[in-house]
Amino acid sequence: MKIYRANLIDTPTKDAFRVLEHGYLAVEDNGTIHGIYASLPDELRMFPLEDLGDQMMIPGFCDMHVHAPQYRNMGLALDLELLPWLNTYTFPEEAKFSDPAYAERIYRRFVHELWMQGTMRSVVFATVHYPATRLLADLFIESGLSTMIGQVGMNRNCPEYLSNTTEQVVKGIADLHNYLQQQSPDGRVRTIVTPRFVPTCSNDMLQAMGQVAKELNLGVQSHLSENKAEIAWVKELEPTSTCYGDVYRQFGLFGQQPTLMAHCVHSSEDELDLIQRNHVTIVHCPMSNMNIASGMAPIRTYLDRGIEVALGTDVAAGHNMSMLRAIQYAIQVSKYHYGESAGQTRFLSQSEAFYLATTAGGKYFGQVGCFNPGYEFDALVIDDHYLNFDHYTLEERLERYFYLGDDRDIKRRFCRGKELCEPQY
Amino acid sequence: MKIYRANLIDTPTKDAFRVLEHGYLAVEDNGTIHGIYASLPDELRMFPLEDLGDQMMIPGFCDMHVHAPQYRNMGLALDLELLPWLNTYTFPEEAKFSDPAYAERIYRRFVHELWMQGTMRSVVFATVHYPATRLLADLFIESGLSTMIGQVGMNRNCPEYLSNTTEQVVKGIADLHNYLQQQSPDGRVRTIVTPRFVPTCSNDMLQAMGQVAKELNLGVQSHLSENKAEIAWVKELEPTSTCYGDVYRQFGLFGQQPTLMAHCVHSSEDELDLIQRNHVTIVHCPMSNMNIASGMAPIRTYLDRGIEVALGTDVAAGHNMSMLRAIQYAIQVSKYHYGESAGQTRFLSQSEAFYLATTAGGKYFGQVGCFNPGYEFDALVIDDHYLNFDHYTLEERLERYFYLGDDRDIKRRFCRGKELCEPQY
Repeated sequence: MKIYRANLIDTPTKDAFRVLEHGYLAVEDNGTIHGIYASLPDELRMFPLEDLGDQMMIPGFCDMHVHAPQYRNMGLALDLELLPWLNTYTFPEEAKFSDPAYAERIYRRFVHELWMQGTMRSVVFATVHYPATRLLADLFIESGLSTMIGQVGMNRNCPEYLSNTTEQVVKGIADLHNYLQQQSPDGRVRTIVTPRFVPTCSNDMLQAMGQVAKELNLGVQSHLSENKAEIAWVKELEPTSTCYGDVYRQFGLFGQQPTLMAHCVHSSEDELDLIQRNHVTIVHCPMSNMNIASGMAPIRTYLDRGIEVALGTDVAAGHNMSMLRAIQYAIQVSKYHYGESAGQTRFLSQSEAFYLATTAGGKYFGQVGCFNPGYEFDALVIDDHYLNFDHYTLEERLERYFYLGDDRDIKRRFCRGKELCEPQY
Repeated sequence: MKIYRANLIDTPTKDAFRVLEHGYLAVEDNGTIHGIYASLPDELRMFPLEDLGDQMMIPGFCDMHVHAPQYRNMGLALDLELLPWLNTYTFPEEAKFSDPAYAERIYRRFVHELWMQGTMRSVVFATVHYPATRLLADLFIESGLSTMIGQVGMNRNCPEYLSNTTEQVVKGIADLHNYLQQQSPDGRVRTIVTPRFVPTCSNDMLQAMGQVAKELNLGVQSHLSENKAEIAWVKELEPTSTCYGDVYRQFGLFGQQPTLMAHCVHSSEDELDLIQRNHVTIVHCPMSNMNIASGMAPIRTYLDRGIEVALGTDVAAGHNMSMLRAIQYAIQVSKYHYGESAGQTRFLSQSEAFYLATTAGGKYFGQVGCFNPGYEFDALVIDDHYLNFDHYTLEERLERYFYLGDDRDIKRRFCRGKELCEPQY
């Protein structure tokens, strides 16, 4: 057991912050949280205690949708909408990952950036290339960061140079799964079934990916209803489906296994019903949606319906891998809907947005994302002394950190109980 | 004369970057730019040359709308719309500036932050308090940053504790003007006539401020058509005016002197005609407009009409004093209009947004904001080696700096030919 004393802030529920000023957090030797306390219980006084002074300790961030091979394009090439953006900028960049040396160079930086930004959990799209995807897994294992990585499946409506076959992607999923069961037996690094999106995956491929997800009991991630032209195209390609999400459902990729669907900017009522009934989690990516002009996802509406929502940066359509920026944009996009509804649609509160970036994403990993007993100890130690030059409350300090803070303020990082040092890059 | 060798990038016009890879910039001893050159002309070879290696040199930023006394509230208190936001958060904070000691503490940080963010030019709202406003002017003089500062006039619909009289504000303007003619004879720090906005200024006050602006030949700044409730209120208060802007016009505060009007999110056609006819510059503040849910200003439409537009952070309704963030949000807000118009309204290009943040704002200060001959030498030296890890073009490097850079990347700062060291705070 080890005890930390710090200003503890987390969101076990979305409606309010839980704040313990100079509280105590006890971590068991297996890396799970024993409890948090306003004053230290007698039975814990025998354990080593580290006083972090006036620093804040918050849960690590969970980026639930990010494309590792697009790291080089981050902050670039944001002048096209989704479909031309893919063809013009993204596919050519992803093609470079057939070269393991290139992959290693970019992926080292990507993993380092996650560490730097305090993103202890991530759910990652790789490329169609198995060797590069396994290499990315190795780099994650080396770093201590927890993640789920998917080798991408795509075999239609995409360049020859960036496609794989159904057999290749199914074998890749199984191979990576077996590899990780040996190399990361505690499940810190896992694989996830990752069809790119309906337009680039034949029915055969979707079916086989659904089947392997079921056989190996793996999660599923993809894209859904991001852009109007994309939705119209899916309707053309799959005219018998009741909605875009229904295509995934037909093939066992829509909640039959735990499922993340990025975007859902323009989901119809029918699609939302299906999402909710099937317990699919929507990954909201507000930076991406603004940058490539997809639209403003009505996340408040989805939350009010009881749909699970988490948050992603979606680099490189998102321009920044900081989950602080994702929090800020999620609130701002929700204020657009507030304005459009003349104040009828409440915008996201600070605690709600923080919940989406920590607790909501963490659920997908198990007991992760807040400081409840039994939860895995993911935490960041934040030194905000530069921002905290006046008598701010702890909640105000956190809010200023969201809007004004950056990686410089993160002094220490813990993932599943282990303190992480800076990865080489 | 002094010569700098660096990667020079600026926007003499908005439609494209001017890029000189490893170019030369010659500065005259009086602080104005002699010229920029792809290769060094023979007649300049006798002068000292400093090679800045692979760093970029860009014009300094111009923040054309920012509230110095709201610095403590930056990144906070963004959960209300304009009018309740003013009453609940902003007026009580501004009231503290009756205390010069408090003012000095906050204003030192504010000036330091401008320096840190590379904002070489700013147009600043102070408060109703003369001593604190003069103190702010002193701190600017000490720093070497160039600015225009306005003591705020407000005498109706505002708390007793934060109002002044017509006589006080007119005397304050004249006194500060005289003071600065002595203390800052080259015009580096100037005063500007600053009625807060129509709802808080009686007709008498507006008239007197218009008159003093004319007599002393000063610029004018205020707020215009930011929020729908505000516009309705102005209509009630001033029923005989043809539009909100017309109230300012009646009193000599709408282009009779060089005028900046912040926001114009919801300006009517009539108001836009008046703005254009009177050569009023709109200061677009996209961060602020999103944070307090004012709406999305249709800046492309204004640019296409030929209206002058510049850019502001509007801290503390804007959450960040970095003009990089203002550039990024200006592009993103314009993409909202692009989306709404199904692609008919072009979004801002990188060069257009950079132009707004430099050249367009600089015009208000004279020949400022790009590297043309005769322009005052305002410049930042940017070391982006962390971002520039692959074969990026100079334009790509600049774009990544917009989206991913911060104050760490600014290595040196020049304003009116003088290199500025870090101000004490």
